[in-house]
Amino acid sequence: MRIAIDAMGGDHAPAKILQGAVEALALLEPGDELILVGDKAVIEQHVGAAIAGKPVRIEHASQVITMDDSPVEAIRGKRDSSIVKMVKLAKEGQADAIISAGNTGALVAAGVLMLKPLAGVERPGIAVTLPAKGGFVMMIDAGANPAAKPAHLHQYAVMASLYMKALRGIEKPRVAILNVGTEDEKGTQLVKDAKELIKADASLNFIGYVEGRDIPKGPCDVLVTDGFTGNVVLKVIEGWSEALVGAMTKELMAEGPELAAKFQPVMGRLMKRYDHEEYGGALLLGVQGTFLKVHGSGGPRAIKNAVGAAKAAGRLGINAAVEAHLAPKA
Amino acid sequence: MRIAIDAMGGDHAPAKILQGAVEALALLEPGDELILVGDKAVIEQHVGAAIAGKPVRIEHASQVITMDDSPVEAIRGKRDSSIVKMVKLAKEGQADAIISAGNTGALVAAGVLMLKPLAGVERPGIAVTLPAKGGFVMMIDAGANPAAKPAHLHQYAVMASLYMKALRGIEKPRVAILNVGTEDEKGTQLVKDAKELIKADASLNFIGYVEGRDIPKGPCDVLVTDGFTGNVVLKVIEGWSEALVGAMTKELMAEGPELAAKFQPVMGRLMKRYDHEEYGGALLLGVQGTFLKVHGSGGPRAIKNAVGAAKAAGRLGINAAVEAHLAPKA
Repeated sequence: MRIAIDAMGGDHAPAKILQGAVEALALLEPGDELILVGDKAVIEQHVGAAIAGKPVRIEHASQVITMDDSPVEAIRGKRDSSIVKMVKLAKEGQADAIISAGNTGALVAAGVLMLKPLAGVERPGIAVTLPAKGGFVMMIDAGANPAAKPAHLHQYAVMASLYMKALRGIEKPRVAILNVGTEDEKGTQLVKDAKELIKADASLNFIGYVEGRDIPKGPCDVLVTDGFTGNVVLKVIEGWSEALVGAMTKELMAEGPELAAKFQPVMGRLMKRYDHEEYGGALLLGVQGTFLKVHGSGGPRAIKNAVGAAKAAGRLGINAAVEAHLAPKA
Repeated sequence: MRIAIDAMGGDHAPAKILQGAVEALALLEPGDELILVGDKAVIEQHVGAAIAGKPVRIEHASQVITMDDSPVEAIRGKRDSSIVKMVKLAKEGQADAIISAGNTGALVAAGVLMLKPLAGVERPGIAVTLPAKGGFVMMIDAGANPAAKPAHLHQYAVMASLYMKALRGIEKPRVAILNVGTEDEKGTQLVKDAKELIKADASLNFIGYVEGRDIPKGPCDVLVTDGFTGNVVLKVIEGWSEALVGAMTKELMAEGPELAAKFQPVMGRLMKRYDHEEYGGALLLGVQGTFLKVHGSGGPRAIKNAVGAAKAAGRLGINAAVEAHLAPKA
């Protein structure tokens, strides 16, 4: 498997991203190859010695899309950026998987606009994992497609169910739709129409509506929503966790540094459980190849785990399963 | 001012709700009256002695809408419930303000379906306060109107701005729209069209889009969104806070009860800052009278603060200001 890594994307690029790539070498099997995409001189300076003689090649890209760049403008204007080059590699069949911690908007725009959708898929969706009791909930879509239609939500349910089955061995993942209540009459027309489509698909294990409040309780394996709501939910969770932990740290320091020090390991264990670096990134489901978005603040471990996830996704044949399910039958 | 309180609504009804009503007597001025709505015998049993000789009267209601009741069915089927009776009092001009900690869906349905909208208001919206740096952010709509149109979002901006001005003395409250990014091209058509309407209204201080992640930083005074997204955001914040605090408590207990005990006051201070009981409830903006929804878990303090908020809203003349702004000019 040929796995391309965006060496220039993310808050800790290039040093920590490249460190992660070097650590990920331990996961490679015979025939696997890493492709580091970015400024050749910079990459060689950082990890030239570490990758010598290893199955790694460098693909030079002279530009970088920053977090401040406007997504669509950036992928149009910066044709020689690491993101555009990396997605091109996937498009041209030169990479089987691509991994980046860079500008999410630009990455998704590049993925959606440049990569071929899988046969039968109308819109790609971003599947993210939210920590929950007993494991995690896979929420889809986290922002690829803000103006979703009922048929898109049905396809998300299918794709994420196949992904969860492959990833966790759950025979019939429990599928729910995110809604403002659990009663039948609740919600928008989108939610109601999507419900009918999902309920009617006998291959899916639909369990009903789930409210935002109950997500941490792990009421379902797959949580379907439109990209606007999903993106807002993901960001609210992130912002709220940060705010709560920040406020707690401040209160602890006010109480005395001794208590703060004692609290350190507790906080550490807690954060580990809520740590996005564990999950190998968000998967853009519905496009050719394997497309993983790592959190912008992701470090070496996040990159290494993303390489592991990419290999798993490839091995599990998610895309073939999606096409077998959704492609129009001849 | 005649303020009706639903004695039967909420997790701690009737005892704690009635205790709150008794405590709220301290806030009454000459001419004010509390109306306790619910089972007369139960109310008298709990607070008969405490309200004797005070400006309080009881309005008997033989039924209770529970948290499990389906909202629309409940308000149709339970015509003698405390919620329906209370909203009727407001409708018939017998109460100036109504307060309940009961079934949110049923309350809002009763409010929207039974109460007269203010002149010029197309849809009522629920304004909730989210704790944020430097005070709070008033988010509207938190769920009264799941399928909002651009004009509704514009009216929310107007109503919440007038409310924030009256409540906090902010001359030109900063208004933002909740979106999946801050760039111009981001978001749904609803968000884009609402932006044009709000930007074009010179009476509003529009500052642009705000992402879910940034809400705790207090980037705006008024945050406008549709009722579906707003309701999901509110519930995600609630569920996430609970989950984080729960996980932390568990980790602390594992570390040893001594550390847990030391941490108690820190947690107490933190929770106080994030405490919904402080804010006097969510206001249903856009209907005749003052309509306050208190959190289901609200106790005496929440009820007392809601009475204070109702008196403030009445004194501030929010509704008259909204009508002056939105009513069609003759």
